[in-house]
Amino acid sequence: MSDRLAADLRAIVGPDSVLDEPSRLLPYESDGLAMLSERPELVVLPADTAEVARCLRVLHQAGVPAVARGAGTGLAGGATPVAGGVVVSTARMRTVLEVNLEDRYARVQAGVVNVNLSRTAAGAGLAYAPDPSSQMACTIGGNVANNSGGPHCFKYGATTRHVLGLVMVTAEGQVIDLSAPRVDPGGYDLVGLFVGSEGTFGLATEVTVKLVPVPAVVETVLAIFPDLDGACDSVSDIIAARLEPSALEILDKLTIDAVEDSVFAAGYPREAGAVLLIEVEGVLEEVSASVIDLRAILDRRGVLEVRTARDADERRKLWAGRKGAFGAMGRVAPDLYVADAVVPRTRLREMVARSVEICRRLDLRLATVFHAGDGNLHPNICYDRRDEDEVKRVLQAGSEILSACVEVGGSLTGEHGVGLEKLEQIELVFSPDDLDAMCRARDAWDPERRMNPGKLIPMRACMELRTPPIR
Amino acid sequence: MSDRLAADLRAIVGPDSVLDEPSRLLPYESDGLAMLSERPELVVLPADTAEVARCLRVLHQAGVPAVARGAGTGLAGGATPVAGGVVVSTARMRTVLEVNLEDRYARVQAGVVNVNLSRTAAGAGLAYAPDPSSQMACTIGGNVANNSGGPHCFKYGATTRHVLGLVMVTAEGQVIDLSAPRVDPGGYDLVGLFVGSEGTFGLATEVTVKLVPVPAVVETVLAIFPDLDGACDSVSDIIAARLEPSALEILDKLTIDAVEDSVFAAGYPREAGAVLLIEVEGVLEEVSASVIDLRAILDRRGVLEVRTARDADERRKLWAGRKGAFGAMGRVAPDLYVADAVVPRTRLREMVARSVEICRRLDLRLATVFHAGDGNLHPNICYDRRDEDEVKRVLQAGSEILSACVEVGGSLTGEHGVGLEKLEQIELVFSPDDLDAMCRARDAWDPERRMNPGKLIPMRACMELRTPPIR
Repeated sequence: MSDRLAADLRAIVGPDSVLDEPSRLLPYESDGLAMLSERPELVVLPADTAEVARCLRVLHQAGVPAVARGAGTGLAGGATPVAGGVVVSTARMRTVLEVNLEDRYARVQAGVVNVNLSRTAAGAGLAYAPDPSSQMACTIGGNVANNSGGPHCFKYGATTRHVLGLVMVTAEGQVIDLSAPRVDPGGYDLVGLFVGSEGTFGLATEVTVKLVPVPAVVETVLAIFPDLDGACDSVSDIIAARLEPSALEILDKLTIDAVEDSVFAAGYPREAGAVLLIEVEGVLEEVSASVIDLRAILDRRGVLEVRTARDADERRKLWAGRKGAFGAMGRVAPDLYVADAVVPRTRLREMVARSVEICRRLDLRLATVFHAGDGNLHPNICYDRRDEDEVKRVLQAGSEILSACVEVGGSLTGEHGVGLEKLEQIELVFSPDDLDAMCRARDAWDPERRMNPGKLIPMRACMELRTPPIR
Repeated sequence: MSDRLAADLRAIVGPDSVLDEPSRLLPYESDGLAMLSERPELVVLPADTAEVARCLRVLHQAGVPAVARGAGTGLAGGATPVAGGVVVSTARMRTVLEVNLEDRYARVQAGVVNVNLSRTAAGAGLAYAPDPSSQMACTIGGNVANNSGGPHCFKYGATTRHVLGLVMVTAEGQVIDLSAPRVDPGGYDLVGLFVGSEGTFGLATEVTVKLVPVPAVVETVLAIFPDLDGACDSVSDIIAARLEPSALEILDKLTIDAVEDSVFAAGYPREAGAVLLIEVEGVLEEVSASVIDLRAILDRRGVLEVRTARDADERRKLWAGRKGAFGAMGRVAPDLYVADAVVPRTRLREMVARSVEICRRLDLRLATVFHAGDGNLHPNICYDRRDEDEVKRVLQAGSEILSACVEVGGSLTGEHGVGLEKLEQIELVFSPDDLDAMCRARDAWDPERRMNPGKLIPMRACMELRTPPIR
């Protein structure tokens, strides 16, 4: 059956674009949540919408589940394969189809790498605003699935704010074209529903996104604090003062050390207990005025030193440290569990302290980096997946941190999605009625649960059917 | 049966909150689209979510359709009653339940009048950004149903960008609470799906909305042009120059005359062929710099005169003219058909000219006011509904203007919704497959089409069942 399926798919995408040898399947067995893995039956790499539709029709007829995959940089197991299922990779779908400078949008294939879109638009003074830390690798399609955030989403909003239209293929292989006309099309906001649905309604093949003007002036400030409290309190004060920086990022001591030991070394001072990275954008007068006000707040909160990037190079370096932080943690331990929780900004300081306390009790090494402006915490726990007891404690800590965040009015995911990782905790924030409402939506498009089954909505909540393995 | 239903509803909401006498039903027979009207069987005015749920359960059991109604200021017939159906008014649900200054949100009952929310938050320096021209009367619930816009939505985005959560009651009377936790709750974006769905999934009873800081400095500029072309071209230039005013509104000569003849007289000059109203917000330095750049563009495009509001009073007056424009048109003819179409901003000048030409050919009086920054045209056709031939020509013109807008890549509705008015034209922008996708969503929540039946999605597209009248 698997051979027959491979042959049918090869007839659509060509002989080289269906992978079935174990050695070639290996890289697809997990995503950024390395502790969970599963061997897919096949990986197929279609080239465009038409090929995706034909592939999904074949899978539908065979009753085989499909899991879409962009770059596999997701951190919640959203792209973990399903046993007996097929991974549909967008790796061959990397074309920027259109850049419209007048109406400021771009139409891209789902597999386009995030940073390449901004590079393509840069010549015209435009950019794609959402900038996940993985933007050098992650794809626009993956960003759509997870409604991804990034440092500058504090100002610009997460992915859903930037997606104008989609072309999507359903479980049955039907193409739904929600990409034209380009301005607000009226009717139901299906695009809004599909963004962030983690591939459970279907597979987005083309995405129309908003482009924003590159700001005239950008000022990047690194504020060095003796401890996390001063950095957290500064963030609260900055927001209360209605200053509107485009990014507010905090890194703690363990993260600073890891970054400075790595190729991403950004000149973060080793003596700091925490650094707050602030970016301000706008016209010259506005930026200058904001920086003066910011400086006063930082001083009041006991900043040790304030550094300002003198040019684009210095700015790039400060950001490379932040964006390379997850990679740099590789020096500390072989594996990294990146938790992702959101709390009201006013509870940030308290929740940071609680996560430190939880990890201390469970004897785990915690590093913390976070999108402070969004209240989006990333407690990063360093571990070794070969140590079973440690893995257990990591999961325990993740669960306790999430519960604590929910307790103070927060939620489970700021930007990484629910995936497999948070299936159990989702019941902390949604009642059975809420989950029922979601299942109704799911039933409307994928009643047999063939698209990324078992992700986002717990199986038992929805009475998700376990899809049969390929026989 | 109707008496029995009235008695059942009175048992829930109290004797005075069910209307059944013809004289009291009269105001509910149409919304702002006065040419369409229908007598409802009953009007019920519940006080809160629990009462709405009980009322909808009674209607569900009786097989009676329900049409939600806020202030009835909608312009597309979205709140037109259904023959034999019940109107559920939110007029008694006017409580602001919570204003949270730290996390900048408010939780309100659906019947809260738009402007009252900003007034409540003003003391704390916050505001609710979306400002429909009808904001003195229209309700937050109605804004949610239509994803309403307004002049300042050019900067801030339409209603959907500001809704953080909802409590909704389904056709069956089930309460879906999507209001907590308050930060991004993960899971499907059902809130996004429900906003703009014109009451066809259910009835929103409580809404949690984002509040934004009132800007430090606001500058309001009135640019007076000899004709519409100069005003339209200035808008294109302003956007191309990446200036970012918060509002860009154009009024044509007939509108100026009507406003100046009315109680909304704003001092718009009678000799003008068009005025462009521009508002710039921010910190002082930024605003001053923007106004200098704006001035240069206006001069290049042949502005006759530029006036700047000297204080809050003058600013209010300039805006009162714009927001009172629809009301002022009452002086020109007894009825006003307010069309609502969107075009890419780069096609604005051309589409204004085409709508003028269409109305001239059909011998209709056209006044034009528009949210120029959003490409959102409002060709206003003055008519008398007692003149059957004129009504026909008005509808013909509306249809031709919409088709022309769609032709150049535009769409059917910028902010008023589809309602009854544009049911036929919706097939210009959506394919049968697209409509099928929408019907799938509708089926998930309201398979029997009891919530606002026959609106938004054409009956035949979805095989909407005509609901039986009350026997």
